[in-house]
Amino acid sequence: MTTTIAAPADATGHGQARRRPRRLAMVASKGTLDGAYPPLILAATAASLGWEVGIFFTFYGLDIIHRKKHRKLKVAPLANPAMPVPVPNLLGALPGMTAAATAMMKGWMKDAKLPEVAQFLDMARESGTKLFACSTTMGVMGVKASDLLPGVDIAGATAFLDFAADADVSLFI
Amino acid sequence: MTTTIAAPADATGHGQARRRPRRLAMVASKGTLDGAYPPLILAATAASLGWEVGIFFTFYGLDIIHRKKHRKLKVAPLANPAMPVPVPNLLGALPGMTAAATAMMKGWMKDAKLPEVAQFLDMARESGTKLFACSTTMGVMGVKASDLLPGVDIAGATAFLDFAADADVSLFI
Amino acid sequence: MTTTIAAPADATGHGQARRRPRRLAMVASKGTLDGAYPPLILAATAASLGWEVGIFFTFYGLDIIHRKKHRKLKVAPLANPAMPVPVPNLLGALPGMTAAATAMMKGWMKDAKLPEVAQFLDMARESGTKLFACSTTMGVMGVKASDLLPGVDIAGATAFLDFAADADVSLFI
Repeated sequence: MTTTIAAPADATGHGQARRRPRRLAMVASKGTLDGAYPPLILAATAASLGWEVGIFFTFYGLDIIHRKKHRKLKVAPLANPAMPVPVPNLLGALPGMTAAATAMMKGWMKDAKLPEVAQFLDMARESGTKLFACSTTMGVMGVKASDLLPGVDIAGATAFLDFAADADVSLFI
Repeated sequence: MTTTIAAPADATGHGQARRRPRRLAMVASKGTLDGAYPPLILAATAASLGWEVGIFFTFYGLDIIHRKKHRKLKVAPLANPAMPVPVPNLLGALPGMTAAATAMMKGWMKDAKLPEVAQFLDMARESGTKLFACSTTMGVMGVKASDLLPGVDIAGATAFLDFAADADVSLFI
Repeated sequence: MTTTIAAPADATGHGQARRRPRRLAMVASKGTLDGAYPPLILAATAASLGWEVGIFFTFYGLDIIHRKKHRKLKVAPLANPAMPVPVPNLLGALPGMTAAATAMMKGWMKDAKLPEVAQFLDMARESGTKLFACSTTMGVMGVKASDLLPGVDIAGATAFLDFAADADVSLFI
């Protein structure tokens, strides 16, 4: 991640070449399969363009970098009227429907040749993407340092703001 | 969208007039009625101020620019304790409650004189707002090019990052 | 909030000291307890670093600054497979489970020594954080001016965009 992008003067609006690479700062706050993909896809895309990338995992998003949970993220069919195959709510409440919706979306993701969450995380670490676990909400969510995947740093909201302050794009997902 | 806003020097912090209009970049990832309104309201507001606007529709958000689905977006009463009229969860699970919650919110939106989704999309196209359908997740969600409303371009995450890199405000909704 | 942070030249990329403090602009669109904490934690952190902070409460997020509702925000156990203690969906649909999930998360937040929502709001007002209630969605959500906590200003999306246009970090939560 040491690539320097020399953007044309008109791109930055102040007539000077950029001295640092573009930067993408994201907060990943969701622990569902469909909530994990957007930050991971954006991180991989930005890294491939030479951007610096940092993801700050907080609240349910901590599951994405949890040793045991990151391979078991699920899609909820309930209360989601936009789910591709609509599930009547009462049926959605039956045990087993979350598993079915998850299997269904995983199949589509495979068809679309999307890497799995674990592969995206490997790519992120290899490309130098910074992965932060939110120290404040680790306590709230009962996540211990030993629960985190290797390569994840524990940091507070101050670290996120410091990183995001100089980002070209910041997103809360 | 060719208006140039000459911002005062202290607004940009580097003592130079801006050479380009303000820009708003949004990702619209939700396919519910209440998830569609924020990007559409912000797009209309920003365009009316002379900003360049781009919306990147991904995952469930693809429903907002889907020929058949954009007129049928729904509100889920379930698992949403902040829903104005609280619906006990078990009752929310009964078929028909999603329709009731949707009708209710549509009524309020009409009372508040908010345009409907289709009207907001018309306004967006007329004002030059860029509408992108996420090529990566179209496959995952089973959305084909022929399902998209006219005036929508298909693009990847790279296109979003390119657009957002020079945006003044970027939001993931 | 009049602190001026003189950032090093390489932080801004254009070789000039900053003339204004850093700025964080947030939209708070969720009315759940777990949806309220991220903007409140980020606001308190940013303010403690001398940043200017503004939060624009819209849709369900209006509950966070509602006189009666801000002390009663809830966590929904349903349709949330990432909930720390998984609740089978059918069980989650039983009345009482929302209350149980809420009590559980409040307990963890207390253990993690997180202030309550009302305390965070007090801190925000004391630090000069700007609190805006979205005028467009107040009508949609049936929220009246008299329902709002003191210190909250009513403003439209234009006000948010004006504030966010010069923000270093903008987030939709």
